[in-house]
Amino acid sequence: MTLLADLLSTVFERRYRQPDTGRKATRPLADLTRDLVGSTGETSGLAMAEDILNGYAALDDEAKLGFFHHLATEMNIDPEQVRSTLDAYEREPSKASYRNFMTAAEPRRQELIRRLNRVPGATEALVDMRADLLRLGRGTPELEALDLDFRHLFASWFNRGFLVLRPINWGSPAHILEKIIAYEAVHAIDSWDDLRRRLQPADRRCFAFFHPAMPDEPLIFVEVALTQGIPSSVQALLAEDRAAMPASRADTAVFYSISNCQAGLASISFGNSLIKQVAADLAAELDGLKTFVTLSPIPGLTTWLDREKIDHKKATPEQMQAFAAHYLLSAKGRGDLPFDPVARFHLGNGAIVHAVHAGADTSPKGQSQSGGAMVNYLYDLDKVEQNHEKFATTKSVMATAEVKSLAKTALPTAKKER
Amino acid sequence: MTLLADLLSTVFERRYRQPDTGRKATRPLADLTRDLVGSTGETSGLAMAEDILNGYAALDDEAKLGFFHHLATEMNIDPEQVRSTLDAYEREPSKASYRNFMTAAEPRRQELIRRLNRVPGATEALVDMRADLLRLGRGTPELEALDLDFRHLFASWFNRGFLVLRPINWGSPAHILEKIIAYEAVHAIDSWDDLRRRLQPADRRCFAFFHPAMPDEPLIFVEVALTQGIPSSVQALLAEDRAAMPASRADTAVFYSISNCQAGLASISFGNSLIKQVAADLAAELDGLKTFVTLSPIPGLTTWLDREKIDHKKATPEQMQAFAAHYLLSAKGRGDLPFDPVARFHLGNGAIVHAVHAGADTSPKGQSQSGGAMVNYLYDLDKVEQNHEKFATTKSVMATAEVKSLAKTALPTAKKER
Amino acid sequence: MTLLADLLSTVFERRYRQPDTGRKATRPLADLTRDLVGSTGETSGLAMAEDILNGYAALDDEAKLGFFHHLATEMNIDPEQVRSTLDAYEREPSKASYRNFMTAAEPRRQELIRRLNRVPGATEALVDMRADLLRLGRGTPELEALDLDFRHLFASWFNRGFLVLRPINWGSPAHILEKIIAYEAVHAIDSWDDLRRRLQPADRRCFAFFHPAMPDEPLIFVEVALTQGIPSSVQALLAEDRAAMPASRADTAVFYSISNCQAGLASISFGNSLIKQVAADLAAELDGLKTFVTLSPIPGLTTWLDREKIDHKKATPEQMQAFAAHYLLSAKGRGDLPFDPVARFHLGNGAIVHAVHAGADTSPKGQSQSGGAMVNYLYDLDKVEQNHEKFATTKSVMATAEVKSLAKTALPTAKKER
Amino acid sequence: MTLLADLLSTVFERRYRQPDTGRKATRPLADLTRDLVGSTGETSGLAMAEDILNGYAALDDEAKLGFFHHLATEMNIDPEQVRSTLDAYEREPSKASYRNFMTAAEPRRQELIRRLNRVPGATEALVDMRADLLRLGRGTPELEALDLDFRHLFASWFNRGFLVLRPINWGSPAHILEKIIAYEAVHAIDSWDDLRRRLQPADRRCFAFFHPAMPDEPLIFVEVALTQGIPSSVQALLAEDRAAMPASRADTAVFYSISNCQAGLASISFGNSLIKQVAADLAAELDGLKTFVTLSPIPGLTTWLDREKIDHKKATPEQMQAFAAHYLLSAKGRGDLPFDPVARFHLGNGAIVHAVHAGADTSPKGQSQSGGAMVNYLYDLDKVEQNHEKFATTKSVMATAEVKSLAKTALPTAKKER
Repeated sequence: MTLLADLLSTVFERRYRQPDTGRKATRPLADLTRDLVGSTGETSGLAMAEDILNGYAALDDEAKLGFFHHLATEMNIDPEQVRSTLDAYEREPSKASYRNFMTAAEPRRQELIRRLNRVPGATEALVDMRADLLRLGRGTPELEALDLDFRHLFASWFNRGFLVLRPINWGSPAHILEKIIAYEAVHAIDSWDDLRRRLQPADRRCFAFFHPAMPDEPLIFVEVALTQGIPSSVQALLAEDRAAMPASRADTAVFYSISNCQAGLASISFGNSLIKQVAADLAAELDGLKTFVTLSPIPGLTTWLDREKIDHKKATPEQMQAFAAHYLLSAKGRGDLPFDPVARFHLGNGAIVHAVHAGADTSPKGQSQSGGAMVNYLYDLDKVEQNHEKFATTKSVMATAEVKSLAKTALPTAKKER
Repeated sequence: MTLLADLLSTVFERRYRQPDTGRKATRPLADLTRDLVGSTGETSGLAMAEDILNGYAALDDEAKLGFFHHLATEMNIDPEQVRSTLDAYEREPSKASYRNFMTAAEPRRQELIRRLNRVPGATEALVDMRADLLRLGRGTPELEALDLDFRHLFASWFNRGFLVLRPINWGSPAHILEKIIAYEAVHAIDSWDDLRRRLQPADRRCFAFFHPAMPDEPLIFVEVALTQGIPSSVQALLAEDRAAMPASRADTAVFYSISNCQAGLASISFGNSLIKQVAADLAAELDGLKTFVTLSPIPGLTTWLDREKIDHKKATPEQMQAFAAHYLLSAKGRGDLPFDPVARFHLGNGAIVHAVHAGADTSPKGQSQSGGAMVNYLYDLDKVEQNHEKFATTKSVMATAEVKSLAKTALPTAKKER
Repeated sequence: MTLLADLLSTVFERRYRQPDTGRKATRPLADLTRDLVGSTGETSGLAMAEDILNGYAALDDEAKLGFFHHLATEMNIDPEQVRSTLDAYEREPSKASYRNFMTAAEPRRQELIRRLNRVPGATEALVDMRADLLRLGRGTPELEALDLDFRHLFASWFNRGFLVLRPINWGSPAHILEKIIAYEAVHAIDSWDDLRRRLQPADRRCFAFFHPAMPDEPLIFVEVALTQGIPSSVQALLAEDRAAMPASRADTAVFYSISNCQAGLASISFGNSLIKQVAADLAAELDGLKTFVTLSPIPGLTTWLDREKIDHKKATPEQMQAFAAHYLLSAKGRGDLPFDPVARFHLGNGAIVHAVHAGADTSPKGQSQSGGAMVNYLYDLDKVEQNHEKFATTKSVMATAEVKSLAKTALPTAKKER
Repeated sequence: MTLLADLLSTVFERRYRQPDTGRKATRPLADLTRDLVGSTGETSGLAMAEDILNGYAALDDEAKLGFFHHLATEMNIDPEQVRSTLDAYEREPSKASYRNFMTAAEPRRQELIRRLNRVPGATEALVDMRADLLRLGRGTPELEALDLDFRHLFASWFNRGFLVLRPINWGSPAHILEKIIAYEAVHAIDSWDDLRRRLQPADRRCFAFFHPAMPDEPLIFVEVALTQGIPSSVQALLAEDRAAMPASRADTAVFYSISNCQAGLASISFGNSLIKQVAADLAAELDGLKTFVTLSPIPGLTTWLDREKIDHKKATPEQMQAFAAHYLLSAKGRGDLPFDPVARFHLGNGAIVHAVHAGADTSPKGQSQSGGAMVNYLYDLDKVEQNHEKFATTKSVMATAEVKSLAKTALPTAKKER
């Protein structure tokens, strides 16, 4: 606890040394990048790095694309250099020959990105830069390759060991809370009152991962409801007039919303860790908790039913439930993995399909994407690891007997309706 | 300031999830490393990573060497793979072909180290592992090459942008202070009373860099005395019975001791940043401060004088001062850089040789390494950058006219004494 | 800074040991109060105190009145006892005789209140109890006397030396911010967006006093605008679309809203300290600040004009300005003090009437209470003390020459219009 | 947890606004006290209060005595005023008449002390002032009476509800730890290494009460050993080479040292609360803890044996144990309470005499005060309250059957030895 004092300084530093967006770069960014990668002086390096970040921030999309192409071509590996240093290393493996190979095999843009990151506050700027790259570079092979360098570095920087899990509650800073409102991607938060209903009651929790170099920006967060029994409807869970319950009386923790916050951290996976750690922490805090379960959307359901020409517009709740079970168990996408992205995520984490519910999300979005159906994925902490291994090997979807039976009832219906 | 609350959780996490050194790995480390690099399950991966770290910690030096050889050989790059993926990338540059090349060109041990680092508290264990490697691997080419991978990753993880500057004072936690006592490498701290004399008076300061993943371990620290005028003797500076002065009356900040704390972070340079940031912070806090200067040892002086066959045993103070000036200005080592390591560091940072003093460090260590001589390097914040550039280009040592004159007086003496 | 760790525990304590409102007192409150004052066991005392606080919280207004009458009569001083112990003390002044007098001269309800306060979280409950007493006891002499005991204890507990000044900003906890919204008494905050406009811009500040035993409850807060020049309209100050300015460019700090938060702390004065400390802190932080001024409502203006039969309904801005100046300089209430309560407060603090403005608050409330007129009180930090002394002695209102001239122009108008 | 940020400001305030001991009062203290009590201006009041505190701090003992006599006489109650206001109140009880009585019945020095306390940092200075008063005023009736006023105010300010319990550990600030070393009153801590042995091992704990206005000063602290079984010797408990045990394996918490830190808070009792709260907190943290017990000195034993003319110099361990039991059960002092002060404290808290041990404290101090004997007082959390009541009523010492038997064996011995 006594380290707090020290950690304080982080905050002050980050707060008071944000890149000065007023400062204008005097030279072309391409020149600055070349100089920065070549520079030895730390202070001049810092100044150049700041100039590049500020200069970049002022660019329009076309100019950003130009900047990315510069990185992708001029700061790429030189295959001849790779080959000759590799040959030399193979002939005589030594510290020097290995160092030469390492240097040649890594494109200079990686060193550029590391040097940009020395500027206080730069990590956030670089995450935003990658968000631009993903948006502007899609479909351009050299820019997709460039993205792999960002991703490689970010995977190292945002290593699980460096992340911090923080509870988010009604006592959290307003500037963090307004980001929770903005980033909620599953069940929109429409006001501060709505937010308070999700954070303040004794039977509600929220947790986020943060990185110490971006203390004002959540990376991913999960909203949790503590309940008695497994809920079958998100309306009931979020009802304005529901009565809260002491946390000690809950037997179930329901992960009802998980939102990634940073477009620039796409493919850097945190969700798995987040759910498992939150489950472990809640289990340690509340003796009564026995069940850890999600109440999840089924975002691909109607798309798939349409594609399969299964008419679901007039389906009864029972039919919709059966369709959902059938879809989750059998609809496959790339690599023989589940078609449904949320299913891929939770099954990949080692959860199983526990139950499906019709009329569970009656919002326009819920109706549109899944005819109102939702699903509970169950995290059995003792089995997630072996479930994960089995799923990784066999790709087969694990589900309760009940869901399996339900899925079977969908088939005749489906066929009949074709 | 309101982020504190959140940062708290870091501390709790780190505190309560230290690797369990009691847990025994059930399988050989080499097998575990192979499985960890190949694993997809995060939870099983974490368990394996913990087993490896705990298993490693229990090894003796011989077994550690074996482990390092395993990493150096079995987890090295495969040149054929590098060549074939490079050819494929050159033929058709794409995201996929670039990814294959990246994977082949990076030895698998780097991915291993990143995965080990996912365990809470692992960063410190990995820094200690590299300390072992540096100690045991010196002179063995393949292990020196292996070290380049550690160093490459650490340079990314310990990027300046991720470090936190903290003041160290008499209100700091005792478990941090005992490390300051242990790590002080220039002027030994011989007791808690001695430590208090360096931290508590109003005219004394200390600052350290920390990494958020190792909050209990300073990386490097500097001790500062606030004075009127530039001091010429460390005895006076550290005298037990000296009277402290209000900080507001100081015109000079003296960096009289800089100590690196982590053997496992050798060659990851922080000192330059530390001095410049501390100087900037002190300048912002205390309007009266005009001069930033060191009072530094001259560790190579007697060695060099002996090598040059200059008899310094009976030198008068005036002669010793002249010898020191001469040595700092002219004694060269590898790459035409100054022979003296401390001189290399400060001149490389953009400082200049401001003054030399005889009888400035009368401790046995001071007498032995420099006949009691010390030197002030001056950090002129407005000029450090251009000084640095000039030194990087020309290798010429910048000094005051006074020091240059002094150096000239050494020559006849030196010749005469030969 | 290193004491933070320790202060943490306060928060945990207060958070987790709130009075259990579910617990029912088993005996009449009057019996419990008698037992509590007589008890010697601390644990049983705590339990009784909790029972009393919980029991009280469950009472309706009539029963609360009954409880207050019990305190006012049964727990009052016994005049005979006071006389006899006083006689004994006068005969032989000693520790024992003085102690007996002290005990007799203080009504037992003071000891009761102190003992109630031992329960964690009780301070807030007692402040709320006094708010009830002020509301229910007005006009009843014995209850007004009882209130003097509460006030006496609170003045000691809420001594300026125990209060903590905290900045309130957009990074403050949401549960504090919602109280700022609720307690703002001068210019209502109508939404979280409105709140953000008052807290987040670089040229806006807010500060509150807190007591460590009530860390979730602000006692009083002030909102500050940093401006160039002295503003003459609150609409301009709070305009939604105004452009913020870097704080460093401000020359003036405007205290445009001061709100007391706790009805139960009426007559415990903090406002004077708050303004002076905030002014001192801002002056230390921002070199450019030269002027400290309010932009204040004139709540008594129209009431007084009506009473004086001065027709202000159709007054021109110039006339309204003159009326306001005249009113502030000459309208007197009890004790020859200014009729206007806000004027009494600021003049009593040592401020002077600097300028008056018509059309400065066009809100319905502003129109209604002062025909839209507002006033700047100037805090000249070098003179507030002597101004205060002069005002305390002579009751004469200090104002600028300009305001005095303005006031004179009001008289003929006023007379003419009668 | 989010309140931390705010609490920070406390620390900054206290740290940077300590009374300026360099400032000299320009007028006699007596004049200043009169003016301060009469002043209405807060700012001038603060300046006077600071002058008084600084002036006082510079006085020698004789001058301090003079200052106390001034308070005791000139700032005392005026009996005539008390009588006349009491008569008026009795004739017509009203808010005004009650206020007049309150003012008259409270000596003006109480208001003086409250006003002195408005200066940041003053609380500590006032506690030190009372320490002086207790030291210098002993035996002087008017000064002993004056002390009752200090004590009355301090009892209100240091109300249990305002105190904060903090763990003290090896991560606590050094400036707090050096006070723990200095204030330890039972078993002296002879070095920082000794301190670490009492704080750092997993089976050792320490807790202190603090007041938010004196965050650098512990008020009282207790050292706890977590053990298996009830220990019978403090040497074994504090042995340098003992092996620590995981806290989870402990079944017993031993309070082996309790030290009051502030002479100026004499007779303001915290120890009872401290032990009970620490016991409750430890019980909540560690499921295995079943027994809460002290290992206490018997400071009055040899004094009493000598007085009773019982020769204990050559007593065998068995005899010494019997003497101790006999003494604890039967030796009575003032008010029929136990002669032994430590026994009075723990029995008064509701503990019972659980066991006595010979050879339990072989230090010179232990030998001298109790021939090496020590005692375990048992805190049975379910029974302390009723034990306390019984002891308060009957004064009879509760003890285990074993101790009672032992005590009986002492009598013949005792008689024989006379």
